[in-house]
Amino acid sequence: MTSSPKAAPITMTPPRPTTIVESPRLSRKLGVDIVLASETLQYTGSFKFRAAYNVASNVSQDHIITASSGNFGQAIAYACSLFGKRCTVVMPATAPKVKVDAVREYGAEVDLVDVGKKGRLERLGELAKQYPAAYVASPYDDPFVIDGNAGLATELFDLGLDLDFIIAPIGGGGLTSGLVKAVERSGSKTQVLAAEPLLANDAAESFRAGHIVSKPEEGATIADGARVLRMGDRNWEILSHGLAGVIEVTEEQIKEGVRLLFALANLKAEPTGALALGAVLAEPKRFKGKRVCCVISGGNADPAQYAKLIEGI
Amino acid sequence: MTSSPKAAPITMTPPRPTTIVESPRLSRKLGVDIVLASETLQYTGSFKFRAAYNVASNVSQDHIITASSGNFGQAIAYACSLFGKRCTVVMPATAPKVKVDAVREYGAEVDLVDVGKKGRLERLGELAKQYPAAYVASPYDDPFVIDGNAGLATELFDLGLDLDFIIAPIGGGGLTSGLVKAVERSGSKTQVLAAEPLLANDAAESFRAGHIVSKPEEGATIADGARVLRMGDRNWEILSHGLAGVIEVTEEQIKEGVRLLFALANLKAEPTGALALGAVLAEPKRFKGKRVCCVISGGNADPAQYAKLIEGI
Repeated sequence: MTSSPKAAPITMTPPRPTTIVESPRLSRKLGVDIVLASETLQYTGSFKFRAAYNVASNVSQDHIITASSGNFGQAIAYACSLFGKRCTVVMPATAPKVKVDAVREYGAEVDLVDVGKKGRLERLGELAKQYPAAYVASPYDDPFVIDGNAGLATELFDLGLDLDFIIAPIGGGGLTSGLVKAVERSGSKTQVLAAEPLLANDAAESFRAGHIVSKPEEGATIADGARVLRMGDRNWEILSHGLAGVIEVTEEQIKEGVRLLFALANLKAEPTGALALGAVLAEPKRFKGKRVCCVISGGNADPAQYAKLIEGI
Repeated sequence: MTSSPKAAPITMTPPRPTTIVESPRLSRKLGVDIVLASETLQYTGSFKFRAAYNVASNVSQDHIITASSGNFGQAIAYACSLFGKRCTVVMPATAPKVKVDAVREYGAEVDLVDVGKKGRLERLGELAKQYPAAYVASPYDDPFVIDGNAGLATELFDLGLDLDFIIAPIGGGGLTSGLVKAVERSGSKTQVLAAEPLLANDAAESFRAGHIVSKPEEGATIADGARVLRMGDRNWEILSHGLAGVIEVTEEQIKEGVRLLFALANLKAEPTGALALGAVLAEPKRFKGKRVCCVISGGNADPAQYAKLIEGI
């Protein structure tokens, strides 16, 4: 933050309300009444800040440790800085450079792991032993995380949006389980759907199997925020009875989602953030004429990768 | 628009309130307390819709004709469609293809002019003769346009933002003259500054000369929305006594503005939309520690050009 001579008079209490974007051109093109709930302008650039702020403001520990492919790392780093807490983030050495840099810039320590040699959770366990007084926060399998994410759906209901579907990306299940909880509390008939990369479809397989399926290795999807081995136990407990389904999205549909958001909604989304729109592309008939909210979960795209995605539009 | 089975319950009355984005990383990097007022998510992707809506809703004519390098064209096309009016837009044959396509998609007729052979205003005059019952709207030199744009500053004051400066791009002067009018009405001490490409600096030269200076040809700036020969008479009347100054921005500063908005604020801005941030880069000492609102005027960037701008970040 800068040393401003004046106090900021507008309410800065995090999290930032979601940014609703309605693009008539996008809706017309898809034949779907699309409402975009963009978290790309959220603090630290993704919905993860909702969860991180809820964790940092609720736990008593002065040191928070987590493992994150990036966005939760940035979010918890910034949230900890707001509360003067120490923060350590375990990240895969393959994480986009912009995300690693951002975590450090927000004041956290980054612990890079070669995930080919050692799992991130294994390394997290080592750190937990090294710092027994620290709070170990899962980016998804944590009650504060799930409650923090629930706030997004509550905002949608408070806006009076009368939605047939809310579609959100799924990795560990933190966002979708928060949304499901909020929808259940509201008594609304809106259905929550998860959008998952076909190349990292542990959630879809879990629903087909009726129990949590764990992948042997992370899927090579462009949607790096959805590269997890398995969803969390708390998340499965909520999702297994509350989620309306999982839509598997191809890499090409994810990329087309990024391009459509750029071209028709002026939104800079990262690939994971375009998963929900990719799900509409994957099942166009299901959503024809329906009112569908796509949660654009984050915008922290790698510049070189993003440039390549849009140059051919 | 789609045929939704339900009415949209949220207020859809245009224009959309501006989107305020505060990026701690951007503010820290520049040492300036930056508030971004983004019009990239405005209907049709730029602030021009504010003016266009005000024109279309106020004039009695059923046919509106204008000349526009693109964004006012899209805006007036969409605004006319909302009121069931016919719309003709004169555009230079060199305008970005995405802008020409969008004007057509919003239902207007596009009249392409080879500006090397015939001026846009000359062609507009021909059309005005051909359609004597039509309303000829200047994208900037029109009282409804100026009043429509004034609404943006009124919103900023209603938010209680206590700003030292508002910086906005200048082409014909429609946006800045609206902002100046609103600031004067409010009695605020906030200063309004115009950001202009050095390569198309007719406004800066006008201020130096004390009268409107007209350029012999359009400047070859990347900020295509600011390529005008001279500002409007009504605009000069307001700006000559109300504007705090014009900042000339180099092409490299405009490009760096686009990159910073992408990297640190998750905003997709077109080059003209990055002029205000470019002005902060041009005069860093002037804004040190000040609270500065940069109006990000539009987001309708050409994909190939945009990809080239960001790939090297």
